[in-house]
Amino acid sequence: MSKPRLLLSFSGGLDTSFCVVHLGERYEITTVTFDCGGLDDDERAAIAARSAECGAVAHHLVDLRDELCERILTPLIRTGFLKGENYPLCVGSERGLQAAGLAKMANAEGFDAVGHGCTAAGNDQVRFDVTLRAMLDPGIVIEAPIRDLGPTRAESAEALRAVGIAVEAKTTTYSINTSLWGTTLGGGPLHDPAKPVPTDLRHRVKAPADVTDADVVVRIGFEHGRPVSVDGVAMAMPALIEHLNAVGAAHGLGREVHTGDTVLGIKGRIVFEAPAAFLIHRAHLELDKLTLSKHQLYLREHLKPLYGQLLHEGLWLDAVMADIGAYFASEQQIVQGEVALRLGKGTCELVTVDAPHSRMKGKARYGETGAGWTGRDTEGFSKILTLGLLR
Amino acid sequence: MSKPRLLLSFSGGLDTSFCVVHLGERYEITTVTFDCGGLDDDERAAIAARSAECGAVAHHLVDLRDELCERILTPLIRTGFLKGENYPLCVGSERGLQAAGLAKMANAEGFDAVGHGCTAAGNDQVRFDVTLRAMLDPGIVIEAPIRDLGPTRAESAEALRAVGIAVEAKTTTYSINTSLWGTTLGGGPLHDPAKPVPTDLRHRVKAPADVTDADVVVRIGFEHGRPVSVDGVAMAMPALIEHLNAVGAAHGLGREVHTGDTVLGIKGRIVFEAPAAFLIHRAHLELDKLTLSKHQLYLREHLKPLYGQLLHEGLWLDAVMADIGAYFASEQQIVQGEVALRLGKGTCELVTVDAPHSRMKGKARYGETGAGWTGRDTEGFSKILTLGLLR
Amino acid sequence: MSKPRLLLSFSGGLDTSFCVVHLGERYEITTVTFDCGGLDDDERAAIAARSAECGAVAHHLVDLRDELCERILTPLIRTGFLKGENYPLCVGSERGLQAAGLAKMANAEGFDAVGHGCTAAGNDQVRFDVTLRAMLDPGIVIEAPIRDLGPTRAESAEALRAVGIAVEAKTTTYSINTSLWGTTLGGGPLHDPAKPVPTDLRHRVKAPADVTDADVVVRIGFEHGRPVSVDGVAMAMPALIEHLNAVGAAHGLGREVHTGDTVLGIKGRIVFEAPAAFLIHRAHLELDKLTLSKHQLYLREHLKPLYGQLLHEGLWLDAVMADIGAYFASEQQIVQGEVALRLGKGTCELVTVDAPHSRMKGKARYGETGAGWTGRDTEGFSKILTLGLLR
Amino acid sequence: MSKPRLLLSFSGGLDTSFCVVHLGERYEITTVTFDCGGLDDDERAAIAARSAECGAVAHHLVDLRDELCERILTPLIRTGFLKGENYPLCVGSERGLQAAGLAKMANAEGFDAVGHGCTAAGNDQVRFDVTLRAMLDPGIVIEAPIRDLGPTRAESAEALRAVGIAVEAKTTTYSINTSLWGTTLGGGPLHDPAKPVPTDLRHRVKAPADVTDADVVVRIGFEHGRPVSVDGVAMAMPALIEHLNAVGAAHGLGREVHTGDTVLGIKGRIVFEAPAAFLIHRAHLELDKLTLSKHQLYLREHLKPLYGQLLHEGLWLDAVMADIGAYFASEQQIVQGEVALRLGKGTCELVTVDAPHSRMKGKARYGETGAGWTGRDTEGFSKILTLGLLR
Repeated sequence: MSKPRLLLSFSGGLDTSFCVVHLGERYEITTVTFDCGGLDDDERAAIAARSAECGAVAHHLVDLRDELCERILTPLIRTGFLKGENYPLCVGSERGLQAAGLAKMANAEGFDAVGHGCTAAGNDQVRFDVTLRAMLDPGIVIEAPIRDLGPTRAESAEALRAVGIAVEAKTTTYSINTSLWGTTLGGGPLHDPAKPVPTDLRHRVKAPADVTDADVVVRIGFEHGRPVSVDGVAMAMPALIEHLNAVGAAHGLGREVHTGDTVLGIKGRIVFEAPAAFLIHRAHLELDKLTLSKHQLYLREHLKPLYGQLLHEGLWLDAVMADIGAYFASEQQIVQGEVALRLGKGTCELVTVDAPHSRMKGKARYGETGAGWTGRDTEGFSKILTLGLLR
Repeated sequence: MSKPRLLLSFSGGLDTSFCVVHLGERYEITTVTFDCGGLDDDERAAIAARSAECGAVAHHLVDLRDELCERILTPLIRTGFLKGENYPLCVGSERGLQAAGLAKMANAEGFDAVGHGCTAAGNDQVRFDVTLRAMLDPGIVIEAPIRDLGPTRAESAEALRAVGIAVEAKTTTYSINTSLWGTTLGGGPLHDPAKPVPTDLRHRVKAPADVTDADVVVRIGFEHGRPVSVDGVAMAMPALIEHLNAVGAAHGLGREVHTGDTVLGIKGRIVFEAPAAFLIHRAHLELDKLTLSKHQLYLREHLKPLYGQLLHEGLWLDAVMADIGAYFASEQQIVQGEVALRLGKGTCELVTVDAPHSRMKGKARYGETGAGWTGRDTEGFSKILTLGLLR
Repeated sequence: MSKPRLLLSFSGGLDTSFCVVHLGERYEITTVTFDCGGLDDDERAAIAARSAECGAVAHHLVDLRDELCERILTPLIRTGFLKGENYPLCVGSERGLQAAGLAKMANAEGFDAVGHGCTAAGNDQVRFDVTLRAMLDPGIVIEAPIRDLGPTRAESAEALRAVGIAVEAKTTTYSINTSLWGTTLGGGPLHDPAKPVPTDLRHRVKAPADVTDADVVVRIGFEHGRPVSVDGVAMAMPALIEHLNAVGAAHGLGREVHTGDTVLGIKGRIVFEAPAAFLIHRAHLELDKLTLSKHQLYLREHLKPLYGQLLHEGLWLDAVMADIGAYFASEQQIVQGEVALRLGKGTCELVTVDAPHSRMKGKARYGETGAGWTGRDTEGFSKILTLGLLR
Repeated sequence: MSKPRLLLSFSGGLDTSFCVVHLGERYEITTVTFDCGGLDDDERAAIAARSAECGAVAHHLVDLRDELCERILTPLIRTGFLKGENYPLCVGSERGLQAAGLAKMANAEGFDAVGHGCTAAGNDQVRFDVTLRAMLDPGIVIEAPIRDLGPTRAESAEALRAVGIAVEAKTTTYSINTSLWGTTLGGGPLHDPAKPVPTDLRHRVKAPADVTDADVVVRIGFEHGRPVSVDGVAMAMPALIEHLNAVGAAHGLGREVHTGDTVLGIKGRIVFEAPAAFLIHRAHLELDKLTLSKHQLYLREHLKPLYGQLLHEGLWLDAVMADIGAYFASEQQIVQGEVALRLGKGTCELVTVDAPHSRMKGKARYGETGAGWTGRDTEGFSKILTLGLLR
């Protein structure tokens, strides 16, 4: 009798390799890698080879970059959410989509089980499990051996070697996750905030002192609150993000420390690099300031935190997320134009904002002659405003 | 019969000098300067001399720096509010207090009228008028000749020259306001966002390329959410802010463009320099992240915007401001510790955070072994979390 | 040379009659009545006759009931906003629309001026002026003689009698405003909250003790968050509201006291009758509770207050209102079904809620066996929830 | 060797009786009942007797009513929170406090374990577990046999009969929980919202048609936002609540259906009776409306939902709860006075509000002559307000 069939979300690393071998005892394994950016062709080929080496009967690569930009990053950019005022949810933005991809493929192709390699310690297990449970057809089992067994790195390596699979000695104390929307680096001394953030804990972003590129002005164009061009050249969002990641990294921008609450409720601390997210946020903010009304700028602050929190915590499928998306799609209809930023050695300065729907066009200006009203009008305004203070 | 007595808020500039002369026809003028920082002894002496030259019968200097730090900047720092994600309300934070000082002195000393030199175009007229109307004893008149008459600069200068008072030719197209909490520079090309922000439009903050100081690590200590020390040296808040303004300016930090809604409802745009506010906010934020609960970090986002808006709009006397202050005083009770920042050439990087009430002490850490729970626990957690998504 | 032409928003009452006569000295007057409900044919004819009697050259009647339901009441019902937990904005919901109607007609037909009869004391002057200023073509003047001159009732009556127009002696100390969405009664003893609310201060709603109708069950059907039927009979919204006003009034429902901040910032206090608004809110709320997620129910609380405030204060044209509308249109897509309420003598009790998208279908139920999870799952859930409390 | 000692939260019902017997096999059991109201002396005696009958070595009764009023109900009343606009958290308000009492006694007296009788299906298990885990000394075990074993009612009864303990046949399909702050009735047909709410599903509150008491005016006095007197007689809060429960129940008030999200994320539906909570909320609201500023009334809406949600979900120990408490303690400092309500047959009408800090004293009134400002002032106000709408 044949084994039941399991579809495993696979990165090719130690944990998911262990999953293939371990689950392979009870299942026929198919692996799938959901590409949210950060992989080159060599890496894609290495992942496929590793899958086969571990004993999977098939391997798939699914490119989610367009869907990531369309469904997740577009509304996220529109909201302007940054966790803790700096972290653009590099990881949390993609995990739910990957889990949804896993569920859809498992449902469509009649798998008996799905699997993931998340640990019991982090955020991703919750993101995977919640989306899988919400989307999987009834009867499809979820396997999560790393979470349930908690093998040490040495134990996982030993299990692989036992079936003849070589494991590289780990060369770093940090764990790294790279994708389109950013790279996170965790572990080691970061767990003690009283210890200095290692200046050499970096992936692609240069230290300001090491920047060799000359200062450059980059112009980012937006339509409907989405980035659509760089320096006047229209680009699809995945390519645009990759381009800005390269430019920003070369100028030492977008690397910061993120400290915040994990999905489980404890504090976590990582270094991340997200040059494109940094530049897009910076430019987009200037368009918002020029085109949105005072009340729009006020109310969005009440919507952003929940949007970011639910995305971070793996609850992106909650119905409220589409409602918030509808809010920002409406709000951003006229958020359009081009913002120029000067990138230096770890510095980023605003140069110009060119917005067709700017609220600074054709009206009286702050600090200058008050065309359109008189001192008698503002006296009345102040007098009435005071009424609410009297008791 | 003697003239009625008027108390004028006086800066010594063209507008308030005009006010002394113009109002002097109907009133006996006493001038008062409310010092919120930014003045040196020479400037203070020049203001007093100008007052006498214009015909005031008396001049007072009132040092509001301690009160500014205690009543306004302490709660403002605790909230972490930055208008438009960067502007710390350099001007709006002090105007209400100055108007309150004017009202209190006028009430206490039985003046018949008070006066200010605000124009009909800006924010300050509303801030002054609202606070004055809310606090002045009945019967005290408010005079605002610049707002009501709207003289041009040339007209004001001519009126002064007519009574023998020399006026310097204006040497800049910008208007500047300097105080403890920052300097604002407005006017000229800033009114068109599509024109480049002039790189030489600056007061004290060096351009990154001009920074000559070596990189330095600065440690800012906090108690109860207030900055209390720099590099281990306890400092009163006014001195601490002045010190950080100097250090930050030397490293090219804290100069940015602010675009936002004025009190009257139109958009305004200025360059500002607020190195101390920048560094304090940056350091304080890291302490918040480590010591506050997820729900504290979430809810504060719903309180900050109104606090900042009402302070900006001159409604600081509204009863809700004290309530928000009580909220943050409670929230910040354990926000204590020291944050080290590395200042480079226009760059600022986090080094360490040493917080006695850190939530990262003695507990399981993100990404590492989940001491305190098992994979079975988190499986249950995810399962229950999913229930709310099902329909 | 002919007089300039003015279009006057006209109710036929003392104030707007005075406006026709007073403004008629300088303008050729056309009157227009914007019907937002509450008028019968006799009243419409009387208004037209009064317009002619006062000297207007033409009179128009514009039925705004459908537009009121579509543009204002539909989003308002969806938000569930009640000012002070009971007042459904009977007046504020319609004034902006009437002012917009005035501006559109004046723009389209080339009037030189528009006029309204609002006083300097109330909310409506601001609602009218703000919408008119935002929408009128350049050069069209706004006349508001009641606001500017402040005639007493006796003065206005005398001015009318002087030109041969009879004025009824005022028979009540209260001012009444009636429209589709409710009736407000203001003035007299209501200004002192320490005096009893007069039990006979009522328009159509019976006192509970006077209800003679037998208890009845009324079923209100909703689609997309809008009321669409009563007792299974599909009805256009204006007719549905009129029907529920009659049914509720007969059962003594929907009459309450509203105390709240006026647009000018002082407190106001009125009695209002809004039986349909009461019943629709009550029924709609039950559908929301059954069909919306916890996070949807939570976040809507952060959107409602601003929506209600801006509508109340005459700022309905602010761009944020459309964004909030888009939010609720999304949220309410599946808010559908029928709610049965039992109406007694001043009482209203929930009977049934029949919602096709109910979240109580086909799942484990509160307090019963926890199908879908085990005690081990909830133990894990609680254990993880606790992590955020530890310090 | 002696058994380890377990302290059991005990109600005397079937579930907790089962716990004594079941856990008695492994532990020496001490029971404790935390009295949050709703018990008379006979019931207290019966609980103690039942404890002994089941084999507990000791029984304690702890009166938590004062602490409940002080720590939980006072801030809750100040916030004005009602879940789903009607439910005052009858159960959720007391569970955390009871769990805290259990933890404190277990810590103080060196118990080896604590136990509770919550099921795996409801909210209370989470409330108990979270508070216990947050407060118990290390090493104290939590036992929850009903949650973990999930015995049916018949199985529990059989287990008791097996050791000679009589069990009454269940006489109702509903489960009832009674305490000071209200009674909840769950189960049976309530799980299907499309079925009529049984009109006879009630505890103490009369049906409107059955009210025999004459209409009465009740006056509730408040200090600092807390109810302190009824009809001019000062009362401690527990007695005041009991009194208003009786008065309200006799007039058919305070019984409603609550539908909402449970802690586990599914929807639950109960009938509840909370006459005192209803009357206190109604009266308190009128004081808020008269004494708080527009901005206070606005911002509180952003604080209430989280306060209510965390209390409902058992997270009352989160640090943010004290911050919200501090906010409302500040806001309610001048919320003082007396509100008179007329209670009829299921009806409640506002009569008077006598508030020393009313904002309607000594100022111009809505709809009357605008003392303090002119039409020219309001024209200016409207003109400036419009600026924010122009684009």
